[in-house]
Amino acid sequence: MAEPAYSISISVAPSNEAKIDVHHHRPDAGEPKTTHPQPTLTVRSEEPPRQQQNQGTLARSDSTGERDRRFDQFKTLGGRLERQLSSIRGGSQHPHPDPAAAGDDEASRDSEAETDDDSGKVPTADRYFAALEGPELETLRATEVPVLPEDETWPFLLRFPISAFGMCMGVSSQAMLYKTLELEPSTAFLRVSPGVNDVLWWVSAALMALVSFIYFLKVVFYFEAVRREFHHPIRVNFFFAPWIACLFLAKGLPEPVTSFHHAVWYQLMAPILFLDLKMYGQWMSGGEWRLSRVASPTTHLAVVGNFVGALLGARMGLREPALFFFAVGTVHYVVLFVTLYQRLPTNVPLPRDLHPVFFLFVATPSVASVAWARISGEFGLGARVAYYVALFLYASLVARVSFFFRGVRFSLAWWAYTFPVTSAAMATAVYASAMTSALTQALAVGLSAVASVTVAGVLATTVYRAFVRRDLFPNDVSIAIRRRPKAKFGKILKRIRTSSADLKELVVSRHSGGGSASETSSVSEPPTPMVYGRARADP
Amino acid sequence: MAEPAYSISISVAPSNEAKIDVHHHRPDAGEPKTTHPQPTLTVRSEEPPRQQQNQGTLARSDSTGERDRRFDQFKTLGGRLERQLSSIRGGSQHPHPDPAAAGDDEASRDSEAETDDDSGKVPTADRYFAALEGPELETLRATEVPVLPEDETWPFLLRFPISAFGMCMGVSSQAMLYKTLELEPSTAFLRVSPGVNDVLWWVSAALMALVSFIYFLKVVFYFEAVRREFHHPIRVNFFFAPWIACLFLAKGLPEPVTSFHHAVWYQLMAPILFLDLKMYGQWMSGGEWRLSRVASPTTHLAVVGNFVGALLGARMGLREPALFFFAVGTVHYVVLFVTLYQRLPTNVPLPRDLHPVFFLFVATPSVASVAWARISGEFGLGARVAYYVALFLYASLVARVSFFFRGVRFSLAWWAYTFPVTSAAMATAVYASAMTSALTQALAVGLSAVASVTVAGVLATTVYRAFVRRDLFPNDVSIAIRRRPKAKFGKILKRIRTSSADLKELVVSRHSGGGSASETSSVSEPPTPMVYGRARADP
Amino acid sequence: MAEPAYSISISVAPSNEAKIDVHHHRPDAGEPKTTHPQPTLTVRSEEPPRQQQNQGTLARSDSTGERDRRFDQFKTLGGRLERQLSSIRGGSQHPHPDPAAAGDDEASRDSEAETDDDSGKVPTADRYFAALEGPELETLRATEVPVLPEDETWPFLLRFPISAFGMCMGVSSQAMLYKTLELEPSTAFLRVSPGVNDVLWWVSAALMALVSFIYFLKVVFYFEAVRREFHHPIRVNFFFAPWIACLFLAKGLPEPVTSFHHAVWYQLMAPILFLDLKMYGQWMSGGEWRLSRVASPTTHLAVVGNFVGALLGARMGLREPALFFFAVGTVHYVVLFVTLYQRLPTNVPLPRDLHPVFFLFVATPSVASVAWARISGEFGLGARVAYYVALFLYASLVARVSFFFRGVRFSLAWWAYTFPVTSAAMATAVYASAMTSALTQALAVGLSAVASVTVAGVLATTVYRAFVRRDLFPNDVSIAIRRRPKAKFGKILKRIRTSSADLKELVVSRHSGGGSASETSSVSEPPTPMVYGRARADP
Repeated sequence: MAEPAYSISISVAPSNEAKIDVHHHRPDAGEPKTTHPQPTLTVRSEEPPRQQQNQGTLARSDSTGERDRRFDQFKTLGGRLERQLSSIRGGSQHPHPDPAAAGDDEASRDSEAETDDDSGKVPTADRYFAALEGPELETLRATEVPVLPEDETWPFLLRFPISAFGMCMGVSSQAMLYKTLELEPSTAFLRVSPGVNDVLWWVSAALMALVSFIYFLKVVFYFEAVRREFHHPIRVNFFFAPWIACLFLAKGLPEPVTSFHHAVWYQLMAPILFLDLKMYGQWMSGGEWRLSRVASPTTHLAVVGNFVGALLGARMGLREPALFFFAVGTVHYVVLFVTLYQRLPTNVPLPRDLHPVFFLFVATPSVASVAWARISGEFGLGARVAYYVALFLYASLVARVSFFFRGVRFSLAWWAYTFPVTSAAMATAVYASAMTSALTQALAVGLSAVASVTVAGVLATTVYRAFVRRDLFPNDVSIAIRRRPKAKFGKILKRIRTSSADLKELVVSRHSGGGSASETSSVSEPPTPMVYGRARADP
Repeated sequence: MAEPAYSISISVAPSNEAKIDVHHHRPDAGEPKTTHPQPTLTVRSEEPPRQQQNQGTLARSDSTGERDRRFDQFKTLGGRLERQLSSIRGGSQHPHPDPAAAGDDEASRDSEAETDDDSGKVPTADRYFAALEGPELETLRATEVPVLPEDETWPFLLRFPISAFGMCMGVSSQAMLYKTLELEPSTAFLRVSPGVNDVLWWVSAALMALVSFIYFLKVVFYFEAVRREFHHPIRVNFFFAPWIACLFLAKGLPEPVTSFHHAVWYQLMAPILFLDLKMYGQWMSGGEWRLSRVASPTTHLAVVGNFVGALLGARMGLREPALFFFAVGTVHYVVLFVTLYQRLPTNVPLPRDLHPVFFLFVATPSVASVAWARISGEFGLGARVAYYVALFLYASLVARVSFFFRGVRFSLAWWAYTFPVTSAAMATAVYASAMTSALTQALAVGLSAVASVTVAGVLATTVYRAFVRRDLFPNDVSIAIRRRPKAKFGKILKRIRTSSADLKELVVSRHSGGGSASETSSVSEPPTPMVYGRARADP
Repeated sequence: MAEPAYSISISVAPSNEAKIDVHHHRPDAGEPKTTHPQPTLTVRSEEPPRQQQNQGTLARSDSTGERDRRFDQFKTLGGRLERQLSSIRGGSQHPHPDPAAAGDDEASRDSEAETDDDSGKVPTADRYFAALEGPELETLRATEVPVLPEDETWPFLLRFPISAFGMCMGVSSQAMLYKTLELEPSTAFLRVSPGVNDVLWWVSAALMALVSFIYFLKVVFYFEAVRREFHHPIRVNFFFAPWIACLFLAKGLPEPVTSFHHAVWYQLMAPILFLDLKMYGQWMSGGEWRLSRVASPTTHLAVVGNFVGALLGARMGLREPALFFFAVGTVHYVVLFVTLYQRLPTNVPLPRDLHPVFFLFVATPSVASVAWARISGEFGLGARVAYYVALFLYASLVARVSFFFRGVRFSLAWWAYTFPVTSAAMATAVYASAMTSALTQALAVGLSAVASVTVAGVLATTVYRAFVRRDLFPNDVSIAIRRRPKAKFGKILKRIRTSSADLKELVVSRHSGGGSASETSSVSEPPTPMVYGRARADP
C-alpha cells in the first residue's frame, strides 16, 4: 500500500468537545509531519453550544431593538422583506475582526447564521419528528431552540392552534347526541326535551362562529404559522375538524335534516374531499409523509370525516354520494387501522403511555356503523359488526383507563378526543332502536351519561384554564421549530461510517505546509476540513 | 481548539479483549501525560467469559449444596425468601481479598452478581426474543445460560407447558368432526356411527380433565413458571387453548347444542373476552408487546377463539353475542393476517423454513366461514369467500409440503397445529351441504380422512415420545432465561457511537496522577472509568 | 489488563484508500514493535477499482476472442459447458508471476475471479435490489458491472422482456372496452359499431400470437434469461400478463362469452392459480421474497388476474369457481393494498416521484367491482363500494398528474399501466347501466375517451421507438446483474462494528517478525490479514 495521506485520531477536550484529528502526510516529503498544525475535524457535544445558542437568540433579539419584529417572519405581509433585512444584518453582524482569536465560537456563529434563514420554507416532516415530542408532537425536545422566543408570551393569534376547532366538535356532537336521544325510539322513554338540543346547537354555532373568526384572522395575518400547522404531521389532521364540526352542526340542527338543500352537503363535503385527495395522496406517493411514518391515532380525524359526511348524506337522501365517501373512508380506515394496530417501529409519535388520543379509535367504527345503517336502510349485519368493533375498542380502552391520565397535560386537542365518546353513545342509541332490550337501552343511557359528563368535565377544565389560570393557549412551539437542525454531527458520523470515500467530501484539501489553526473556516471551503456541529442531530 | 482532555486508542489483547484507552491530558500541566497509567475502557469479547459463566453456574449450584433449592425461585411459596438468601450469599461469595491481583476476573464476577438477581421480575419481550430461537421460541441461543440447570431433568410440573392443552384441542376437534360428519346432509351417506363421536368426546373430556388438573398444580406450586409462560411472546397464545378446547368439547357434545343453558356459553366466553382485552390492548398500546414484534402464526390462536365462540353461540341461538365475537375476531384477524403476510422485518420469530405452525393459517378462515354461515343463517357469499380463502391457504401449504418436516422437532405444540386440518374438514362438510355435488362431497370425505390420519399420527408420536422415549416433556428452557443479558457490550458501543457527550457518562473521572492498573473498579464508581461487558448483547 | 496484542490506526492514502493498520505487539517481548512492517487491514474506496473492473471486463472479453461466447451463459444449451471452460480459463489467466510486484492489483483480480462464477445460480432478491434501481428496477446502479457487455447491442431475444405482454394487455383491453360500450345499456346511445370490437380483437389476437411466439423462442434458446426474469422482484409480476391478456381476449371476443366451453376458462385459470400459489406462498413463507420487501405497484398484476378470471367465470356461469378466485384475490389485495399504502421503509423499489406504475392502483378495484357485480348478480352495495374506491384512486392520481411524467423513461412496461384506465372506463360503463343518469353516462363516455387516447398515445410512442428510434428493446441489464456483489467493504465494516471478537476472523495471523509489505495476499490466507473490497456494497 502507498504512503498514507491522512491518519485519524480522536480526542476529547475538557470542554466536552470530541476532536478528530486528520494527520496529513506529505506525499512528496515521504515522512509524516505530525508536528505540523493539522487540519482538524472537530465535533462538538451539546451542552455548551446550548447556552451559546440561547445567548445568541437573546443577543439577536436585543440587537433587533423592537420586540415585535421577531414574529414578523410568520406574518403574511412584511415577513419576506424582514427576512431579507435580517439576512443582510446577519451578514454584517459578524465582522470577523480577529479570526485567529475567535476560533471555534466564530465558526459556530457562522454556521448558526447559515441555518437561521429557515423562515422561508416549511420544515420537513422529518424535522417535525426530530424537533418535537409528545403524543401530539407538541413539546420541543431539549436540544432544540425555537425560532420564536420561548420565554415570553407570543401574540394571541400565533398561540391559537387549529385544534381549537376540537371544542366545536365536542360541543356540537353533544347537540347531535341530544337530538338522537330525543328522536330514537329506544331512548324515547327518557323524554329528552327538544330544548336541550336547541340550546346546545346555538351554543355550538356561536362557538363555531367565534373560533372560525379567530382562525380566519390567523390565516390573514400569520399565514406562515397556518402553513406550518398544515405541515405538522399531527396537527394537519385537525384541518378536518372545522368541516367535521360543520357536519355535526348540520346533523344536530333542530330541524329534520331532510329539509336541507342538497347543495349544503356538497359544499361541506368539497373541502373534505380536497383534504382526502391531498392527504391520502401524500400517504400513497410516499416520501417523508408516508403513512408508516405519520400514522398516529390523531390520523383518525382524517378518516372519520368521510363517515360523518356519509351519515349526513344518507339521511338527506343522497345515497350514492354517501356511499362514495363511505367507500373512500372504509378502505383508508382499514389501512390506517392495520397500521396503527401493528405499531410499526417507524411510527415515531405514538406514545407508550395511553392517552385520550386513543379514544379516537372508538369514533370511526361508531360513526361508520350508523352511516352504514343509514345507507343500507337497516341496522344489518354490517352495521352491527362495525358497532360491536366500536364497543370492543371502547371496552378495551376503559379496561386500561387507569393508565390514561398519567402525566398527560391538558390541551385543546382533548376536545377532539371527547367526540368519540359521544359518537359511541349515539351509535348505541341507534343500535338500541334496532335491537331493543333493557340491556341495550341501559347501555345507551349509560354511555350518553358518560359522554355528557366527559364533555362537561373537559369544558370545565377549559374554562378554568382560559379564565382562571389563563394558560389555555400556551406558546405553540410546535410551529416554531427551526427548518434545519443546528447539529450536523449525526450526519457527519453517518458519512464517515458509510465509506471511506466519503471522507474525501469532508476532508477535501491537503494542508499545504506551515499553516496555523487560524486558517480554519466552514465546511464548504476546501482549504480547511474543519466541521462544526452539535450532537443529537438524528433522533 | 483547546488542549484535549482525553484521547482514545483501541487495542486488542491476545486474550481476545479489545481495550479502548482513554488518555487523559492534564489541563493544568498542558502536556499530555501518556506515560502515566491510563484510565481504560475495556470491552471484552465473549468466549472466555462463556467458560467462566458456566463455571460460575456450576460453582454456585455446588455451593448451594441441596439440588432442589435451585428450582425454588419458580415456586409460588419460598421463592422470595430463597432469593434474598441467595443475594446475601452472592454478596459474601466474593470477598475481594486482593483487588489488585483479581483484576479483570474480579470485576467480571461483580457484574455477574449484579445481573444475577433476575428471578424477581419476568423477563421483557425483548429478552425472550434475544435469548430464544426457533419457530416457537423454544430453544436457547448458544450464547445464553439459563437460570435453571440445563444438564438434568427438572421437576415434572416445571416441564409441563401450557401448550399441552393443544392435545385437548386436537382430540376434541376430532369429536366435533365426527359429530359434523354424522349430522351434515352432505356426508350422511357415510353413515358415521354416533358411537365414534361418543367415544372421542369422552376421551377428550378425560384428557381435558387430566391436563387441566396437572396445569392447575403448576399454577399452585410454580406460579412463577406460569407467569413466565404468560409473558412468553409465543407461549402466551396458548393460554387461549384451554378455553378453545372447552368450546370444542361443548360443540362436540353428543347432545344437540341447542339444549345447553346459555350461561355455559357466557362462562366459556368470559375468559376469552378477558384475554382478548388483555392481548389486543397490549398490541395496540405498543411498547415491546406491539403486534409488529410479537406476531407469529401462533398468534392465530389468540384470534380463532372468537370465531369458535361465535360459531357455538350462533348454534345456541345467541346471535347477537355471537356476532359481537365475530366482529372482534374479524377486525383483529384482518390486522393479524396482513401483518403475518407482510412478514415485517421486525417479526423476529418467523422461521424461514415452513413448519406445522403455518397450518394455523387455515384454521381461522375455516371456522370463520362456518360461524358466519350460522350467524347469517345461510352459507352465503360471505361464508363462501371465507371458505375459499381457507381452501386456497390449505392448497398453498400442501403445495409446499415437501418443506414441512425438514429439521422440525416434534413438540406438544404440534397438537395445536392439527386442529386447523380438522376445522377445514368440518367447514368443507358444511360447505358441501350447501353446495352439494360429487366434487364437494369427495372433498369433504378426503379432508376428513386427512384430518383423522394427521391426528392419529400425532397421537402415535406423542404416545411414543411419552412412554417409549420418555422425552415428551423436555426441560422447558424457554421459561428459564435470565431476565437481563450477561453482556452489555452492544449498549456501550451504541453509547459511544451516539455522541461524544455520552462518553462523559462512562469516562466520568479524571485520573489523578500516579495510580496503577490495580485501581480499576466497576462502572458506577467514578474514579476509574473501566467498563466490562461481553459481546453480542443486542441481537 | 494484559499487554495489548494489536492496536488499530486508520489512515487515508492519496489514492483514496483507507488503511486500517493493526499494530501487533509481541506478547513475549513485552514492548510494542510499531516500527516493524505491520499486518494491514486495507479497505479500498470505489473509484479506482471501478476503472479496473471495466478494464477487466474488456480484457476478458477480448481474450475470449469470439463475441458470441459471452452470451452463452444465458443460453439453454452450451451454457454449462462454457461456464466450466471459462472457470478453467479464469484460473490460468492469472499466472501470479511476481506476487510481490503484483501487489494490490493481483489480489483484487483474485477476488474478482472468485466472484465471477455467478452464472450458475440465479441472483437473490437482495442482489436485485442492491444492483438495480428505478421504479421497475430496470437500471443498473452506478457501482455495478453487468455480466454482459453494456456497450453493445445484445441478441434480440435477450432484449425481449416479459413485459412485452403488456402490449397485449393494453390492446386487448381496448377490444373489451368497445365490446362493453357496444353492449351496455348506458352507452348504447353511442351506437358503437361491432366492427370496432372485431378489428381490435383481431389486432390483439395477432399481437398476442406474435409476442407469445417470440417469447417462446426466448424460453427455448435463453432459458437462463427467462429464469432471471422470473426471479426479478418486479418483473416476475409480468408473468401474469400473458394469462391476463388471454382472459381479456376471451372476454373481448365478439361472440357472447356464454357460448364458450367451460374448459377454456379452466385452462386459462390453471396457470394463474399456479402462479398465485407460487407467489403468495413466497410472500407468506418469508425470506427475502417476503411481501414487505418486494411489494410495489407492479405487484397489482399478481392480484388483478384473479379478478379478471372471476369476472369472466361469472359471466360464463361458473359462479363458484369465480367466487373462489374472487376470494383469493380479495384477501391478497387487502394485504397488498395495505402494504403499498403504508409505504414501509423496507419497500425499496417504490420511487418517490409518481409514475405510470401508480395507475395499477385503479385496475384492481375497477375489475373487482364488475366481478362482484357479476357474481352477486347485481351492481349492489359491495360492487359500488369497490367502484367508488377505484374512482377515488383515479381522482387521486389525476389530481397529481403534473408529477407524472417528470423524468420518467418510456418502456414497454407502460403498456401494462394503460389497461387500468381502460378497466376504469369499463367499470364506469357497467356502473352507469345500474345507476343511469346523465352524469354517470357522461363519466363513462369521458373515461372511455381518455382510455382510448391513452392507448393510442402509448401505441404511437411504441411504434416510434420500435421503427424510428429503434430503441424499443434496449439491453435488458436487469437480468444481467452479477450474482454476488464485487464489494465486500460494507460487510467488513459491519463485522468490525459488531464486536471486537469478530476482528479475529479478519486479523487471524500474528505477523512473525521481519516481513515486508509485499507479503500481503488474499483474505482467506491466514498469514496476512489484508482485506480488499470496494465501498458501497450494502445499499
